[in-house]
Amino acid sequence: MSPLLLYGKPCAEHLAESIANSVTELGFAPKLYTIGFDNEQWLQYTTSLAKSATRYSVEVQNITVSQDVLPEEFFKLVKDTCANADCCGVMLQQPLPTEFKQAVNFVDVSVDVDCQNPLTCAKLYYGQDGFRPATAQAVINLLDFYNIELQGKNVVIVGRGNAVGKPLALMMIARNATVTVCHTKTKNLAKVCQNADILISACGKAGLITSDFVNNNTIVVDVGLSFVGGKSCGDVSPEVYDICAGYSPVPGGVGPVTRATLFENLIKAAKGDR
Amino acid sequence: MSPLLLYGKPCAEHLAESIANSVTELGFAPKLYTIGFDNEQWLQYTTSLAKSATRYSVEVQNITVSQDVLPEEFFKLVKDTCANADCCGVMLQQPLPTEFKQAVNFVDVSVDVDCQNPLTCAKLYYGQDGFRPATAQAVINLLDFYNIELQGKNVVIVGRGNAVGKPLALMMIARNATVTVCHTKTKNLAKVCQNADILISACGKAGLITSDFVNNNTIVVDVGLSFVGGKSCGDVSPEVYDICAGYSPVPGGVGPVTRATLFENLIKAAKGDR
Repeated sequence: MSPLLLYGKPCAEHLAESIANSVTELGFAPKLYTIGFDNEQWLQYTTSLAKSATRYSVEVQNITVSQDVLPEEFFKLVKDTCANADCCGVMLQQPLPTEFKQAVNFVDVSVDVDCQNPLTCAKLYYGQDGFRPATAQAVINLLDFYNIELQGKNVVIVGRGNAVGKPLALMMIARNATVTVCHTKTKNLAKVCQNADILISACGKAGLITSDFVNNNTIVVDVGLSFVGGKSCGDVSPEVYDICAGYSPVPGGVGPVTRATLFENLIKAAKGDR
Repeated sequence: MSPLLLYGKPCAEHLAESIANSVTELGFAPKLYTIGFDNEQWLQYTTSLAKSATRYSVEVQNITVSQDVLPEEFFKLVKDTCANADCCGVMLQQPLPTEFKQAVNFVDVSVDVDCQNPLTCAKLYYGQDGFRPATAQAVINLLDFYNIELQGKNVVIVGRGNAVGKPLALMMIARNATVTVCHTKTKNLAKVCQNADILISACGKAGLITSDFVNNNTIVVDVGLSFVGGKSCGDVSPEVYDICAGYSPVPGGVGPVTRATLFENLIKAAKGDR
Protein backbone atom coordinates (compact mmCIF):
# COMPACT_ATOMS: atom_id res chain seq x y z
CA MET A 1 0.00 0.00 0.00
CA SER A 2 1.40 3.39 -0.91
CA PRO A 3 1.78 5.73 2.05
CA LEU A 4 -0.75 8.43 2.90
CA LEU A 5 0.61 11.78 1.75
CA LEU A 6 -0.08 14.60 4.19
CA TYR A 7 0.48 17.57 1.90
CA GLY A 8 -0.04 20.96 3.48
CA LYS A 9 -1.67 22.71 0.54
CA PRO A 10 -5.17 21.14 0.70
CA CYS A 11 -5.25 21.77 4.45
CA ALA A 12 -4.09 25.38 4.02
CA GLU A 13 -6.72 25.92 1.30
CA HIS A 14 -9.40 24.50 3.54
CA LEU A 15 -8.35 26.90 6.32
CA ALA A 16 -8.20 29.79 3.83
CA GLU A 17 -11.78 29.11 2.81
CA SER A 18 -12.94 29.06 6.41
CA ILE A 19 -10.96 32.28 7.08
CA ALA A 20 -12.57 33.98 4.05
CA ASN A 21 -16.03 32.99 5.30
CA SER A 22 -15.23 34.41 8.74
CA VAL A 23 -14.00 37.67 7.22
CA THR A 24 -17.28 37.98 5.30
CA GLU A 25 -19.19 37.42 8.53
CA LEU A 26 -17.01 39.93 10.40
CA GLY A 27 -17.49 42.53 7.68
CA PHE A 28 -13.88 43.72 7.86
CA ALA A 29 -10.39 42.40 7.13
CA PRO A 30 -8.62 41.70 10.45
CA LYS A 31 -5.17 43.23 10.70
CA LEU A 32 -1.99 41.65 11.97
CA TYR A 33 0.92 43.88 12.97
CA THR A 34 4.42 42.45 12.95
CA ILE A 35 7.13 44.32 14.82
CA GLY A 36 10.81 43.66 14.32
CA PHE A 37 14.21 45.03 13.47
CA ASP A 38 15.92 45.57 10.17
CA ASN A 39 16.92 41.89 10.14
CA GLU A 40 17.23 40.17 6.77
CA GLN A 41 15.56 36.86 7.67
CA TRP A 42 12.72 38.59 9.53
CA LEU A 43 12.14 41.08 6.70
CA GLN A 44 12.02 38.26 4.18
CA TYR A 45 9.49 36.34 6.27
CA THR A 46 7.24 39.29 7.05
CA THR A 47 7.32 40.63 3.48
CA SER A 48 6.17 37.25 2.23
CA LEU A 49 3.54 37.17 4.99
CA ALA A 50 2.19 40.54 3.90
CA LYS A 51 2.10 39.42 0.26
CA SER A 52 0.05 36.33 1.10
CA ALA A 53 -2.39 38.31 3.27
CA THR A 54 -4.69 39.22 0.34
CA ARG A 55 -5.10 35.56 -0.52
CA TYR A 56 -6.35 35.04 3.04
CA SER A 57 -8.58 38.14 3.00
CA VAL A 58 -6.66 39.64 5.93
CA GLU A 59 -4.22 42.53 6.31
CA VAL A 60 -0.62 42.49 7.50
CA GLN A 61 1.28 45.64 8.41
CA ASN A 62 4.99 45.23 9.08
CA ILE A 63 6.58 47.70 11.46
CA THR A 64 10.36 47.80 11.16
CA VAL A 65 12.31 49.64 13.83
CA SER A 66 15.89 50.85 13.52
CA GLN A 67 18.70 49.16 15.42
CA ASP A 68 19.22 52.24 17.65
CA VAL A 69 15.76 52.18 19.24
CA LEU A 70 15.80 52.07 23.06
CA PRO A 71 14.14 49.11 24.83
CA GLU A 72 11.61 51.44 26.51
CA GLU A 73 10.69 52.93 23.14
CA PHE A 74 10.30 49.45 21.70
CA PHE A 75 8.09 48.33 24.61
CA LYS A 76 5.93 51.43 24.19
CA LEU A 77 5.59 50.73 20.47
CA VAL A 78 4.42 47.19 21.21
CA LYS A 79 1.92 48.45 23.80
CA ASP A 80 0.62 51.22 21.54
CA THR A 81 0.31 48.86 18.59
CA CYS A 82 -1.79 46.43 20.63
CA ALA A 83 -4.04 49.36 21.58
CA ASN A 84 -4.60 50.43 17.95
CA ALA A 85 -8.30 50.32 17.11
CA ASP A 86 -7.64 48.25 13.98
CA CYS A 87 -5.21 45.81 15.63
CA CYS A 88 -6.39 42.20 15.86
CA GLY A 89 -3.00 40.50 16.17
CA VAL A 90 0.60 41.33 17.03
CA MET A 91 3.64 39.20 16.34
CA LEU A 92 7.14 40.20 17.46
CA GLN A 93 10.37 39.13 15.81
CA GLN A 94 11.72 35.93 17.33
CA PRO A 95 14.28 35.77 18.75
CA LEU A 96 14.55 39.35 19.95
CA PRO A 97 17.89 40.85 21.03
CA THR A 98 18.45 40.25 24.78
CA GLU A 99 17.52 43.74 26.03
CA PHE A 100 14.30 43.60 24.06
CA LYS A 101 13.11 40.15 25.11
CA GLN A 102 10.77 41.59 27.77
CA ALA A 103 8.71 43.09 24.96
CA VAL A 104 6.63 39.89 24.89
CA ASN A 105 5.08 40.98 28.20
CA PHE A 106 3.60 44.00 26.39
CA VAL A 107 1.84 41.92 23.74
CA ASP A 108 -1.74 42.03 24.96
CA VAL A 109 -3.06 38.48 25.53
CA SER A 110 -6.12 39.27 23.40
CA VAL A 111 -3.96 39.87 20.28
CA ASP A 112 -1.13 37.43 21.08
CA VAL A 113 -1.76 35.29 18.00
CA ASP A 114 1.59 33.44 18.10
CA CYS A 115 1.59 32.76 21.88
CA GLN A 116 4.53 35.01 22.78
CA ASN A 117 3.34 36.49 26.10
CA PRO A 118 4.09 34.25 29.14
CA LEU A 119 0.46 34.54 30.21
CA THR A 120 -0.62 33.00 26.91
CA CYS A 121 1.95 30.24 27.47
CA ALA A 122 0.44 29.59 30.89
CA LYS A 123 -2.96 29.12 29.20
CA LEU A 124 -1.35 26.58 26.90
CA TYR A 125 0.23 24.88 29.93
CA TYR A 126 -3.08 24.69 31.79
CA GLY A 127 -4.99 23.67 28.66
CA GLN A 128 -7.16 26.79 28.90
CA ASP A 129 -8.65 28.59 25.90
CA GLY A 130 -6.09 30.84 24.26
CA PHE A 131 -3.74 31.15 21.32
CA ARG A 132 -1.25 28.39 20.59
CA PRO A 133 2.06 28.83 18.74
CA ALA A 134 1.15 28.74 15.03
CA THR A 135 3.66 26.06 13.97
CA ALA A 136 2.70 23.63 16.74
CA GLN A 137 -1.00 24.25 16.06
CA ALA A 138 -0.34 23.72 12.34
CA VAL A 139 0.87 20.16 13.05
CA ILE A 140 -2.41 19.43 14.85
CA ASN A 141 -4.43 21.13 12.10
CA LEU A 142 -2.68 19.02 9.47
CA LEU A 143 -3.30 15.75 11.33
CA ASP A 144 -6.92 16.72 11.99
CA PHE A 145 -7.42 17.61 8.33
CA TYR A 146 -6.32 14.10 7.30
CA ASN A 147 -8.47 12.55 10.06
CA ILE A 148 -5.50 11.08 11.92
CA GLU A 149 -6.84 10.14 15.34
CA LEU A 150 -4.70 11.45 18.23
CA GLN A 151 -6.45 10.03 21.32
CA GLY A 152 -4.62 7.05 22.76
CA LYS A 153 -1.92 7.22 20.10
CA ASN A 154 1.78 7.03 20.92
CA VAL A 155 3.14 10.35 19.73
CA VAL A 156 6.91 10.73 19.76
CA ILE A 157 8.22 14.26 19.35
CA VAL A 158 11.90 14.74 18.50
CA GLY A 159 12.88 18.21 19.69
CA ARG A 160 12.01 20.21 22.80
CA GLY A 161 12.14 23.78 21.50
CA ASN A 162 9.73 26.54 22.50
CA ALA A 163 8.39 26.97 18.98
CA VAL A 164 7.31 23.37 18.32
CA GLY A 165 8.49 20.50 20.54
CA LYS A 166 7.48 21.76 23.96
CA PRO A 167 4.11 23.38 23.12
CA LEU A 168 3.17 20.49 20.83
CA ALA A 169 3.88 18.00 23.63
CA LEU A 170 1.44 19.80 25.93
CA MET A 171 -1.12 20.18 23.15
CA MET A 172 -0.88 16.48 22.26
CA ILE A 173 -1.29 15.50 25.93
CA ALA A 174 -4.41 17.70 26.04
CA ARG A 175 -5.64 15.80 22.97
CA ASN A 176 -5.26 12.55 24.93
CA ALA A 177 -2.19 11.24 23.11
CA THR A 178 0.51 9.39 25.03
CA VAL A 179 3.47 11.68 24.41
CA THR A 180 7.21 11.04 24.45
CA VAL A 181 9.63 13.95 24.09
CA CYS A 182 13.11 13.15 22.74
CA HIS A 183 16.09 15.44 22.21
CA THR A 184 19.85 15.52 21.76
CA LYS A 185 20.40 13.68 25.06
CA THR A 186 18.04 10.81 24.23
CA LYS A 187 19.71 7.42 24.12
CA ASN A 188 18.73 4.95 21.37
CA LEU A 189 16.68 7.55 19.57
CA ALA A 190 15.79 5.13 16.76
CA LYS A 191 14.42 2.60 19.26
CA VAL A 192 12.30 5.19 21.08
CA CYS A 193 10.92 6.45 17.76
CA GLN A 194 10.03 2.91 16.65
CA ASN A 195 7.29 2.90 19.31
CA ALA A 196 5.55 5.86 17.69
CA ASP A 197 2.19 5.72 15.98
CA ILE A 198 2.86 9.33 15.04
CA LEU A 199 6.45 10.56 14.83
CA ILE A 200 7.02 14.31 14.73
CA SER A 201 10.49 15.67 14.12
CA ALA A 202 11.28 19.32 14.83
CA CYS A 203 15.06 19.49 15.02
CA GLY A 204 16.33 21.16 11.87
CA LYS A 205 18.84 18.36 11.41
CA ALA A 206 18.70 17.11 7.82
CA GLY A 207 18.43 13.34 7.44
CA LEU A 208 18.17 12.64 11.19
CA ILE A 209 15.15 10.33 10.83
CA THR A 210 16.17 7.24 8.89
CA SER A 211 14.36 4.02 8.00
CA ASP A 212 15.28 2.32 11.30
CA PHE A 213 13.21 4.97 13.17
CA VAL A 214 9.87 3.86 11.71
CA ASN A 215 7.70 0.87 10.94
CA ASN A 216 4.98 0.46 8.37
CA ASN A 217 2.34 1.81 10.73
CA THR A 218 4.11 5.06 11.53
CA ILE A 219 2.77 8.43 10.42
CA VAL A 220 5.72 10.82 10.10
CA VAL A 221 5.33 14.60 10.35
CA ASP A 222 8.43 16.55 9.41
CA VAL A 223 8.66 20.00 11.01
CA GLY A 224 12.41 20.35 10.56
CA LEU A 225 13.84 22.93 8.21
CA SER A 226 17.42 23.18 7.09
CA PHE A 227 19.20 24.17 3.92
CA VAL A 228 21.50 21.73 2.21
CA GLY A 229 23.21 22.84 -0.98
CA GLY A 230 20.82 25.78 -1.24
CA LYS A 231 17.79 23.50 -1.09
CA SER A 232 15.36 23.44 1.85
CA CYS A 233 14.92 20.04 3.43
CA GLY A 234 13.45 18.48 6.53
CA ASP A 235 14.67 16.11 9.25
CA VAL A 236 13.34 13.02 7.52
CA SER A 237 15.50 11.06 5.11
CA PRO A 238 13.54 10.24 1.90
CA GLU A 239 14.15 6.48 2.36
CA VAL A 240 11.62 6.65 5.23
CA TYR A 241 8.82 7.44 2.77
CA ASP A 242 9.00 3.91 1.33
CA ILE A 243 8.40 2.26 4.68
CA CYS A 244 6.04 4.39 6.81
CA ALA A 245 2.24 4.47 6.69
CA GLY A 246 2.10 8.16 5.85
CA TYR A 247 4.16 11.30 5.88
CA SER A 248 4.12 15.04 5.61
CA PRO A 249 7.13 16.21 3.55
CA VAL A 250 9.40 19.26 3.68
CA PRO A 251 8.82 21.42 1.73
CA GLY A 252 5.08 21.22 1.12
CA GLY A 253 3.87 19.83 4.46
CA VAL A 254 3.45 21.79 7.70
CA GLY A 255 4.94 24.98 6.18
CA PRO A 256 1.90 26.21 4.22
CA VAL A 257 -0.38 25.24 7.12
CA THR A 258 1.57 27.39 9.59
CA ARG A 259 0.74 30.61 7.76
CA ALA A 260 -2.93 29.64 7.47
CA THR A 261 -2.95 28.78 11.18
CA LEU A 262 -1.49 32.16 12.11
CA PHE A 263 -4.28 33.84 10.15
CA GLU A 264 -6.80 31.45 11.72
CA ASN A 265 -5.60 32.72 15.11
CA LEU A 266 -5.99 36.28 13.80
CA ILE A 267 -9.62 35.52 12.96
CA LYS A 268 -10.17 34.14 16.47
CA ALA A 269 -8.68 37.35 17.87
CA ALA A 270 -10.91 39.47 15.63
CA LYS A 271 -13.96 37.55 16.84
CA GLY A 272 -12.81 37.99 20.44
CA ASP A 273 -13.13 34.21 20.57
CA ARG A 274 -10.15 32.79 22.42
CA MET B 1 20.00 -8.04 44.88
CA SER B 2 17.55 -6.32 47.18
CA PRO B 3 16.02 -3.15 45.71
CA LEU B 4 17.27 0.33 46.55
CA LEU B 5 14.89 1.92 49.03
CA LEU B 6 14.23 5.59 48.36
CA TYR B 7 12.85 6.64 51.72
CA GLY B 8 11.93 10.29 52.04
CA LYS B 9 13.06 10.85 55.60
CA PRO B 10 16.86 10.98 55.06
CA CYS B 11 16.34 13.32 52.12
CA ALA B 12 13.98 15.55 54.13
CA GLU B 13 16.47 15.63 57.01
CA HIS B 14 19.26 16.59 54.63
CA LEU B 15 17.12 19.43 53.27
CA ALA B 16 16.16 20.47 56.83
CA GLU B 17 19.84 20.78 57.73
CA SER B 18 20.55 22.91 54.71
CA ILE B 19 17.47 25.03 55.47
CA ALA B 20 18.63 25.53 59.10
CA ASN B 21 22.05 26.65 57.86
CA SER B 22 20.44 29.13 55.50
CA VAL B 23 18.25 30.51 58.28
CA THR B 24 21.36 31.06 60.42
CA GLU B 25 22.98 32.91 57.53
CA LEU B 26 19.86 34.97 56.90
CA GLY B 27 19.60 35.90 60.57
CA PHE B 28 15.82 35.58 60.63
CA ALA B 29 13.16 32.88 60.28
CA PRO B 30 11.45 33.27 56.90
CA LYS B 31 7.68 33.32 57.06
CA LEU B 32 5.19 31.50 54.86
CA TYR B 33 1.59 32.66 54.79
CA THR B 34 -1.10 30.23 53.76
CA ILE B 35 -4.50 31.61 52.76
CA GLY B 36 -7.59 29.47 52.50
CA PHE B 37 -11.15 28.86 53.54
CA ASP B 38 -12.60 27.04 56.49
CA ASN B 39 -12.15 23.74 54.63
CA GLU B 40 -11.44 20.63 56.65
CA GLN B 41 -8.76 19.09 54.45
CA TRP B 42 -6.99 22.41 53.97
CA LEU B 43 -7.11 23.22 57.71
CA GLN B 44 -5.68 19.81 58.55
CA TYR B 45 -2.84 20.27 56.05
CA THR B 46 -1.95 23.82 57.06
CA THR B 47 -2.15 23.10 60.78
CA SER B 48 0.28 20.26 60.36
CA LEU B 49 2.48 22.52 58.19
CA ALA B 50 2.57 25.16 60.92
CA LYS B 51 3.43 22.52 63.53
CA SER B 52 6.39 21.27 61.52
CA ALA B 53 7.70 24.79 60.85
CA THR B 54 9.76 24.94 64.05
CA ARG B 55 11.60 21.78 63.07
CA TYR B 56 12.59 23.55 59.85
CA SER B 57 13.49 26.83 61.63
CA VAL B 58 10.87 28.70 59.61
CA GLU B 59 7.49 30.28 60.42
CA VAL B 60 4.08 29.48 59.03
CA GLN B 61 1.05 31.71 59.54
CA ASN B 62 -2.29 30.34 58.40
CA ILE B 63 -4.92 32.85 57.37
CA THR B 64 -8.40 31.38 57.30
CA VAL B 65 -11.16 33.39 55.68
CA SER B 66 -14.88 32.88 56.15
CA GLN B 67 -17.05 31.42 53.39
CA ASP B 68 -18.89 34.74 52.89
CA VAL B 69 -15.84 36.76 51.84
CA LEU B 70 -16.22 38.49 48.46
CA PRO B 71 -13.76 37.62 45.67
CA GLU B 72 -12.47 41.23 45.60
CA GLU B 73 -11.83 41.14 49.35
CA PHE B 74 -10.02 37.82 48.95
CA PHE B 75 -7.87 39.16 46.11
CA LYS B 76 -6.99 42.23 48.20
CA LEU B 77 -6.05 40.00 51.12
CA VAL B 78 -3.70 37.99 48.87
CA LYS B 79 -2.15 41.17 47.48
CA ASP B 80 -1.74 42.76 50.93
CA THR B 81 -0.27 39.57 52.40
CA CYS B 82 2.36 39.42 49.66
CA ALA B 83 3.25 43.05 50.47
CA ASN B 84 3.74 42.32 54.21
CA ALA B 85 7.29 43.22 55.24
CA ASP B 86 7.76 39.81 56.89
CA CYS B 87 6.26 37.77 54.04
CA CYS B 88 8.66 35.46 52.20
CA GLY B 89 6.14 33.02 50.78
CA VAL B 90 2.42 32.75 50.06
CA MET B 91 0.49 29.60 49.32
CA LEU B 92 -3.22 29.62 48.47
CA GLN B 93 -5.64 26.77 49.05
CA GLN B 94 -5.85 24.50 46.04
CA PRO B 95 -8.27 24.08 44.47
CA LEU B 96 -9.98 27.40 45.14
CA PRO B 97 -13.73 27.86 44.60
CA THR B 98 -14.41 28.99 40.99
CA GLU B 99 -15.00 32.70 41.68
CA PHE B 100 -11.75 32.84 43.67
CA LYS B 101 -9.47 31.07 41.19
CA GLN B 102 -8.13 34.37 39.82
CA ALA B 103 -6.49 34.97 43.20
CA VAL B 104 -3.37 33.18 41.93
CA ASN B 105 -2.70 36.23 39.74
CA PHE B 106 -2.26 38.29 42.92
CA VAL B 107 0.40 36.02 44.40
CA ASP B 108 3.55 38.02 43.75
CA VAL B 109 6.01 35.98 41.67
CA SER B 110 8.77 36.70 44.22
CA VAL B 111 6.86 34.87 46.99
CA ASP B 112 5.07 32.28 44.84
CA VAL B 113 6.76 29.30 46.53
CA ASP B 114 4.35 26.66 45.21
CA CYS B 115 4.22 27.95 41.61
CA GLN B 116 0.58 29.08 41.61
CA ASN B 117 0.81 32.30 39.57
CA PRO B 118 0.61 31.72 35.76
CA LEU B 119 3.77 33.82 35.34
CA THR B 120 5.67 31.39 37.58
CA CYS B 121 4.26 28.54 35.49
CA ALA B 122 5.56 30.24 32.36
CA LYS B 123 9.05 30.31 33.93
CA LEU B 124 8.73 26.57 34.53
CA TYR B 125 7.59 26.11 30.93
CA TYR B 126 10.53 28.09 29.55
CA GLY B 127 12.99 26.48 31.96
CA GLN B 128 13.81 29.87 33.48
CA ASP B 129 14.81 30.38 37.12
CA GLY B 130 11.78 30.41 39.36
CA PHE B 131 9.80 28.38 41.84
CA ARG B 132 8.59 24.92 40.89
CA PRO B 133 5.55 23.13 42.39
CA ALA B 134 6.79 21.60 45.63
CA THR B 135 5.57 18.04 45.02
CA ALA B 136 7.08 17.81 41.53
CA GLN B 137 10.34 19.35 42.80
CA ALA B 138 10.30 16.87 45.70
CA VAL B 139 10.44 13.95 43.25
CA ILE B 140 13.54 15.46 41.65
CA ASN B 141 15.06 16.21 45.08
CA LEU B 142 14.49 12.61 46.17
CA LEU B 143 16.09 11.15 43.02
CA ASP B 144 19.01 13.58 43.29
CA PHE B 145 19.51 12.69 46.95
CA TYR B 146 19.87 9.02 46.02
CA ASN B 147 22.16 9.90 43.09
CA ILE B 148 19.79 8.56 40.47
CA GLU B 149 21.02 9.97 37.17
CA LEU B 150 18.29 11.62 35.07
CA GLN B 151 20.11 12.65 31.89
CA GLY B 152 19.39 10.30 29.00
CA LYS B 153 17.09 8.14 31.11
CA ASN B 154 13.66 7.04 29.93
CA VAL B 155 11.29 8.58 32.44
CA VAL B 156 7.66 7.52 32.23
CA ILE B 157 5.18 9.63 34.16
CA VAL B 158 1.70 8.24 34.78
CA GLY B 159 -0.62 11.20 35.33
CA ARG B 160 -0.87 14.61 33.68
CA GLY B 161 -2.17 16.77 36.53
CA ASN B 162 -1.08 20.33 37.23
CA ALA B 163 0.39 19.45 40.63
CA VAL B 164 2.76 16.67 39.58
CA GLY B 165 2.51 15.05 36.15
CA LYS B 166 2.63 18.08 33.89
CA PRO B 167 5.23 20.19 35.73
CA LEU B 168 7.40 17.14 36.41
CA ALA B 169 7.39 16.27 32.69
CA LEU B 170 8.75 19.71 31.82
CA MET B 171 11.26 19.59 34.68
CA MET B 172 12.49 16.15 33.63
CA ILE B 173 12.85 17.30 30.00
CA ALA B 174 14.92 20.25 31.29
CA ARG B 175 17.07 17.72 33.16
CA ASN B 176 17.72 15.95 29.83
CA ALA B 177 15.55 12.89 30.48
CA THR B 178 13.54 11.37 27.64
CA VAL B 179 10.02 11.79 29.00
CA THR B 180 6.80 9.93 28.27
CA VAL B 181 3.53 11.17 29.75
CA CYS B 182 0.74 8.59 30.21
CA HIS B 183 -2.80 9.05 31.46
CA THR B 184 -6.26 7.51 31.53
CA LYS B 185 -6.44 7.45 27.71
CA THR B 186 -3.10 5.65 27.27
CA LYS B 187 -3.38 2.30 25.55
CA ASN B 188 -1.29 -0.64 26.82
CA LEU B 189 -0.17 1.30 29.88
CA ALA B 190 1.83 -1.65 31.23
CA LYS B 191 3.77 -1.94 27.97
CA VAL B 192 4.59 1.77 27.86
CA CYS B 193 5.74 1.67 31.49
CA GLN B 194 7.98 -1.35 30.82
CA ASN B 195 10.25 0.95 28.78
CA ALA B 196 10.93 3.15 31.80
CA ASP B 197 14.26 3.44 33.57
CA ILE B 198 12.38 5.61 36.05
CA LEU B 199 8.63 5.16 36.49
CA ILE B 200 6.73 7.88 38.32
CA SER B 201 3.09 7.37 39.18
CA ALA B 202 0.94 10.31 40.24
CA CYS B 203 -2.64 9.15 39.78
CA GLY B 204 -4.12 8.48 43.19
CA LYS B 205 -5.36 5.09 41.98
CA ALA B 206 -4.41 2.42 44.51
CA GLY B 207 -2.72 -0.64 43.04
CA LEU B 208 -2.59 0.71 39.48
CA ILE B 209 1.07 -0.17 38.98
CA THR B 210 1.48 -3.95 39.04
CA SER B 211 4.43 -6.24 38.43
CA ASP B 212 3.89 -6.34 34.66
CA PHE B 213 4.64 -2.58 34.53
CA VAL B 214 8.28 -2.91 35.58
CA ASN B 215 11.45 -4.86 35.00
CA ASN B 216 14.38 -5.44 37.33
CA ASN B 217 16.09 -2.24 36.20
CA THR B 218 13.15 0.06 36.90
CA ILE B 219 13.25 2.69 39.65
CA VAL B 220 9.68 3.35 40.80
CA VAL B 221 8.62 6.59 42.45
CA ASP B 222 5.14 6.54 43.89
CA VAL B 223 3.48 9.96 44.16
CA GLY B 224 -0.07 8.64 44.35
CA LEU B 225 -2.11 9.00 47.49
CA SER B 226 -5.38 7.34 48.22
CA PHE B 227 -7.10 5.91 51.28
CA VAL B 228 -8.14 2.29 51.34
CA GLY B 229 -9.82 0.97 54.47
CA GLY B 230 -8.68 4.09 56.35
CA LYS B 231 -5.03 3.48 55.44
CA SER B 232 -3.09 5.77 53.12
CA CYS B 233 -1.57 4.02 50.13
CA GLY B 234 0.06 4.83 46.83
CA ASP B 235 -0.45 3.82 43.21
CA VAL B 236 2.08 1.01 43.34
CA SER B 237 1.05 -2.51 44.26
CA PRO B 238 3.49 -4.00 46.85
CA GLU B 239 4.27 -6.98 44.58
CA VAL B 240 6.25 -4.50 42.40
CA TYR B 241 8.79 -4.05 45.21
CA ASP B 242 10.08 -7.58 44.73
CA ILE B 243 10.90 -7.06 41.07
CA CYS B 244 12.10 -3.50 40.49
CA ALA B 245 15.58 -2.07 41.02
CA GLY B 246 14.44 0.49 43.56
CA TYR B 247 11.36 2.25 44.85
CA SER B 248 10.03 5.09 46.91
CA PRO B 249 7.03 3.91 48.95
CA VAL B 250 3.81 5.55 50.11
CA PRO B 251 3.73 6.54 52.92
CA GLY B 252 7.34 7.44 53.71
CA GLY B 253 8.61 8.43 50.27
CA VAL B 254 7.97 11.68 48.44
CA GLY B 255 5.56 12.94 51.15
CA PRO B 256 8.11 14.08 53.74
CA VAL B 257 10.29 15.56 50.99
CA THR B 258 7.43 17.74 49.69
CA ARG B 259 7.20 19.71 52.89
CA ALA B 260 10.98 20.16 53.07
CA THR B 261 10.96 21.28 49.43
CA LEU B 262 8.25 23.86 50.10
CA PHE B 263 10.39 25.28 52.89
CA GLU B 264 13.46 25.10 50.64
CA ASN B 265 11.54 27.30 48.19
CA LEU B 266 10.70 29.62 51.09
CA ILE B 267 14.42 29.97 51.81
CA LYS B 268 15.10 30.78 48.15
CA ALA B 269 12.39 33.45 48.34
CA ALA B 270 13.89 34.87 51.54
CA LYS B 271 17.29 35.07 49.85
CA GLY B 272 15.71 36.73 46.82
CA ASP B 273 17.39 33.92 44.93
CA ARG B 274 14.97 32.58 42.32
